Amino acid sequence: MKDTKALNIPTLSGNLCNQNLLQAAQQFQTPLFVYDFNQIAQKYEQLKLAFGGRKMLICYALKANSNLSVIKKLATLESGADCVSLGEIKRSIIAGIPAYKIIYSGVGKQDYEIQEALKIGILFINIESKEELLRIEKIAKTMNINARISIRVNPDINAQTHPYISTGLKENKFGVSIEEAKSLYLYAHNSKVLEPIGIHFHIGSQLTKLTPIEESAQKIASLAHSLLALKINLKFFDIGGGIGITYNDETAINPYDYAQAILETLRGLDMTIICEPGRFIVGNSGVFLTKVLLEKENQDKRFIIVDGAMNDLIRPSLYNAYHQIIPLKDTKAHQSLADVVGPICESGDYLGKNIALPKLERGDILAILSVGAYGFSMSSNYNTRTKCAEVAIEDGKLRLIRKRESFEDLIALEKDYL
Amino acid sequence: MKDTKALNIPTLSGNLCNQNLLQAAQQFQTPLFVYDFNQIAQKYEQLKLAFGGRKMLICYALKANSNLSVIKKLATLESGADCVSLGEIKRSIIAGIPAYKIIYSGVGKQDYEIQEALKIGILFINIESKEELLRIEKIAKTMNINARISIRVNPDINAQTHPYISTGLKENKFGVSIEEAKSLYLYAHNSKVLEPIGIHFHIGSQLTKLTPIEESAQKIASLAHSLLALKINLKFFDIGGGIGITYNDETAINPYDYAQAILETLRGLDMTIICEPGRFIVGNSGVFLTKVLLEKENQDKRFIIVDGAMNDLIRPSLYNAYHQIIPLKDTKAHQSLADVVGPICESGDYLGKNIALPKLERGDILAILSVGAYGFSMSSNYNTRTKCAEVAIEDGKLRLIRKRESFEDLIALEKDYL
Repeated sequence: MKDTKALNIPTLSGNLCNQNLLQAAQQFQTPLFVYDFNQIAQKYEQLKLAFGGRKMLICYALKANSNLSVIKKLATLESGADCVSLGEIKRSIIAGIPAYKIIYSGVGKQDYEIQEALKIGILFINIESKEELLRIEKIAKTMNINARISIRVNPDINAQTHPYISTGLKENKFGVSIEEAKSLYLYAHNSKVLEPIGIHFHIGSQLTKLTPIEESAQKIASLAHSLLALKINLKFFDIGGGIGITYNDETAINPYDYAQAILETLRGLDMTIICEPGRFIVGNSGVFLTKVLLEKENQDKRFIIVDGAMNDLIRPSLYNAYHQIIPLKDTKAHQSLADVVGPICESGDYLGKNIALPKLERGDILAILSVGAYGFSMSSNYNTRTKCAEVAIEDGKLRLIRKRESFEDLIALEKDYL
Repeated sequence: MKDTKALNIPTLSGNLCNQNLLQAAQQFQTPLFVYDFNQIAQKYEQLKLAFGGRKMLICYALKANSNLSVIKKLATLESGADCVSLGEIKRSIIAGIPAYKIIYSGVGKQDYEIQEALKIGILFINIESKEELLRIEKIAKTMNINARISIRVNPDINAQTHPYISTGLKENKFGVSIEEAKSLYLYAHNSKVLEPIGIHFHIGSQLTKLTPIEESAQKIASLAHSLLALKINLKFFDIGGGIGITYNDETAINPYDYAQAILETLRGLDMTIICEPGRFIVGNSGVFLTKVLLEKENQDKRFIIVDGAMNDLIRPSLYNAYHQIIPLKDTKAHQSLADVVGPICESGDYLGKNIALPKLERGDILAILSVGAYGFSMSSNYNTRTKCAEVAIEDGKLRLIRKRESFEDLIALEKDYL
């Protein structure tokens, strides 16, 4: 048996204790996402603190979890927002993040999104290609407005994470090479409407190794130095996000070491650091609660069939991701291996495989841990299943932050065309 | 260069011709799902015809594509419905499928779903485990109603398809073994409220080999024979769905051969065949239209960045699925290999890899073929992207069958909790 404490394996504690979670399941039904708002605040502060007195802005990456109340919580902590669509920008504004703390990234920005971002007056747009730079210049000219920009530089470094969330290799669609970045900065510098104020890199998500980040930061800092020599004085050093969390027994990057590595590379550069954490802040703060419907043995194979499914949480199926699964009952019963599966009609519908679990009864609640990031935000309505409700726990108090979807919601946009 | 005709590779024709699709893109914007309703009808009739005069009911598998208008189209052709949730049963009823043609399958049915299904009086419930059989009996007793049932038998046969959609092996969560089925039928036969009227198997989806289906049917027919000897006279032989389609150059199962193989195994059994096709009927009838935002070269790698993404169509990312991609422009230009990728911030966001495409301009429309099944039905709101609109083409005429989702729709269930 692994010693969970020694290995720092996620457990249920604080707001996310058995009692609170059982109450949440009873009050709001299952399947359900529950987020610990105190833990979200604590992770935010931990990262902020790691960078000490250094000028820096944390721009929370909404893609991880874009519930309006989650964003609002971070807004009250003075967080900015890293957005990848106009929808995310709108969410940030509604939740109270000021425009000047919003940055906008993504390889496929549409004209109307760029226009709106410029109109709102966000901090800057991260440019992903030459084509985009020229397009933004054109749009800004038409609008007779200045466009603050940063360029996403692809350092061609292997982030050593899942291929789907590795983004810093030249064979990925993101950013431009260091050589191209240089020429784009020169172009922007000479443009009447483009205002290059930042430089950006982001090599992937769920990073657990510091070296690739450090090497990338060095490459980008060295580029910032050479731009400075050309009188291109950038104000923001955007180090992206991607700091990994512990799902099982991975050793996470220590935020202090992370900050030190970045600060080290920035010597001689008077720049404000921007960091775009998503998973780091919300990942371990979220739990998915699901109810046992039945246990089933198919010959020598044990299945726990629950009311949650791949439409609610696709990470196991899509990324082969591992999540701790803990039954919310006090038991010393013998544990045996089981697959925890949902009601959806395909074998890809599983939440966990070969998980050691005691004998479970119908109605028992299982907590699937570390689902605060890329959980609800990737959920679908496959099999005509409605999306879950979302609940916040703060100072031990539960409150609904998203109502459970209804069947009527699902057909609302179709029924008038019958 | 492959000869697409000879290999039966999907192409754009009939209602789904360039002109209609360009009109659809212009009228309803992109990204967009377009379905050929004449082709849907034709596939339905083709399967019906293959079984000749034999008593049979086609129960369309809603999970593939549950748009109300698609179901209504099939209802007018006298199709039944294969449902896997109460939501799908409700959709069927609203779209005009009579209760007596609805069957309900799935490993994780909830009590309220079972109650409602019994109340509505659907044809039968496919039982997936002993636990479920006992539960349905209990519910039926409480409701003082008879429950018509069928038992899903897992023949332990390798369907030779993607592991996520293979369902007929004993290590899958579906159905019960032949031995267990026998004892469950005996139990049901003696129950006062259970009415065993059918037998069911379903070994997977996107099947391209006939032999596994044939072998499964033989095993199940032999079980039906031995049940008959015990005076358990079943009326319905439910052969499941799963007939594959051609995405690229797979050789699809010929519906006539399929029917013959089934009919052969049914000799001496006077049973109505139930078939549950989903993908077979709608798969090749659907096209996803997406607009080119820009072309980008990262060193030696070519990317076409489009406005559609993995949230709209997750099959490439989730199943490593291949879809034909055809530009809607008349060009003889040189083709080179490119990845067709969306605006979502991860490398898993692609619609096609290494696709031969001519040089494309901003605004060009690409048609992604064979997305009628498991396209829209699996779509999500990842990156705060709204779900696409859906359009039907019938007799050359376009009509909206689902309105494009708005940002307001996305936050409707959250904004009151801020």
